[in-house]
Amino acid sequence: MLIDVVPTAKHIADYDLTAKTAVVFDILRASSTITTALANGCLGVFPVLSVEEARALVADPKRKIPSANPDVMMLAGERGGQKIPFFPHGNSPLEYTPDVVSGNYLVLTTSNGTRAINGAARASCVYIGSLLNTRATAAAAAGKNRDIVMICAGTADKFSLEDTLAAGFVIKELLHLKPGLSDLAIASLRIAEHYSQEPLRAFLDSRHGQKLIRLGLEEDIKWCARMNIYDFASHFKNGKIEIDK
Amino acid sequence: MLIDVVPTAKHIADYDLTAKTAVVFDILRASSTITTALANGCLGVFPVLSVEEARALVADPKRKIPSANPDVMMLAGERGGQKIPFFPHGNSPLEYTPDVVSGNYLVLTTSNGTRAINGAARASCVYIGSLLNTRATAAAAAGKNRDIVMICAGTADKFSLEDTLAAGFVIKELLHLKPGLSDLAIASLRIAEHYSQEPLRAFLDSRHGQKLIRLGLEEDIKWCARMNIYDFASHFKNGKIEIDK
Repeated sequence: MLIDVVPTAKHIADYDLTAKTAVVFDILRASSTITTALANGCLGVFPVLSVEEARALVADPKRKIPSANPDVMMLAGERGGQKIPFFPHGNSPLEYTPDVVSGNYLVLTTSNGTRAINGAARASCVYIGSLLNTRATAAAAAGKNRDIVMICAGTADKFSLEDTLAAGFVIKELLHLKPGLSDLAIASLRIAEHYSQEPLRAFLDSRHGQKLIRLGLEEDIKWCARMNIYDFASHFKNGKIEIDK
Repeated sequence: MLIDVVPTAKHIADYDLTAKTAVVFDILRASSTITTALANGCLGVFPVLSVEEARALVADPKRKIPSANPDVMMLAGERGGQKIPFFPHGNSPLEYTPDVVSGNYLVLTTSNGTRAINGAARASCVYIGSLLNTRATAAAAAGKNRDIVMICAGTADKFSLEDTLAAGFVIKELLHLKPGLSDLAIASLRIAEHYSQEPLRAFLDSRHGQKLIRLGLEEDIKWCARMNIYDFASHFKNGKIEIDK
């Protein structure tokens, strides 16, 4: 088994994903929000690229879910870390408590995360990674018995510390399989080893973490740093993210 | 002072180098070879992009050095870690002993390193970094009192462990200046911290280091891992690399 790491959503096209397992990370905050929403009873998340696409799907959900009615579709997203004007929901994992999200679908569009998820669709199967469910995600990916490509969303098309940290934590869980590691996979592992006792510290060191704090979102990043509080993995298939069963 | 890190020569165009100091790293082996040659009396190194350009400059050195005659120009390079057919010299630092290189100029073309060096020319000033002279390089770069961009050559247009390690060692020397660090600068620092007692270990972990060992070049990589054996920095200016005075 070989493990490679893609540094940003922009660079996915440079990597061959054919017959491989992909794990996508946009730790601050899209993939942590998706994982929290699913844990709290959300039926599925549709990650879409544009605001227009999100509005269209909420207006006409039957395009994706024949049985659905518009009432169960929640329009959510952010651009540059902030809510989108006239969108009822944002990209904070703390927003999606069971009373808000249970029994509903989320239509989500974010700056980098939804682009990374859709870019990963060429892979044989796609998981959504987060610190909240690192161990379960690693186990699910290992179970596919294929080469694995960790896809980091990155920040503004550049390397991000928080996403490679998360990739490194998954790699750490897979070391017993003695995988071959690319140089960036080794670097991600070293980052995870460095911050293993205190992943929140990496978020505070990162540019995007610092930006979210300036926006008053410190509670969000504290939540995103909680390791392995959930024991399920989630996958992306036919445009929808659901809990892996 | 801000410090950023460019992961590969391919990505230099995505970064603004205006009014900044650049340090270029192609640790295995171009920048280690250049540093060793200069230490052993080489008068200057011309890093050129193509085999054709290298041959043309050796045939007609007066284009660059009015006083030179062809006798003092040494044609050197590699592609894919191996010597170029009919080139008298390769890209091994161990080749450039004083009796070979003293009093001569080197015309060098390599797979990634010479591309990274030429790509850095937009910066206000350009240093060539190596583990062999990390401390002196850091001191020279700090002396310019500008933002610094560490430019890693990378391997086959991907992130390389050895080049980010070297960037991290220079960043480590600059921490007393309390610079702002990009996420990749922090990651490079963490890698340098991890391997600080044994940089050779990083080369053995890296894909390119493993390839050089398969090619029988283990002595080369051992040489490239020797920290701070030289106390000069070297700069790239008007197409030529020389010792910084």
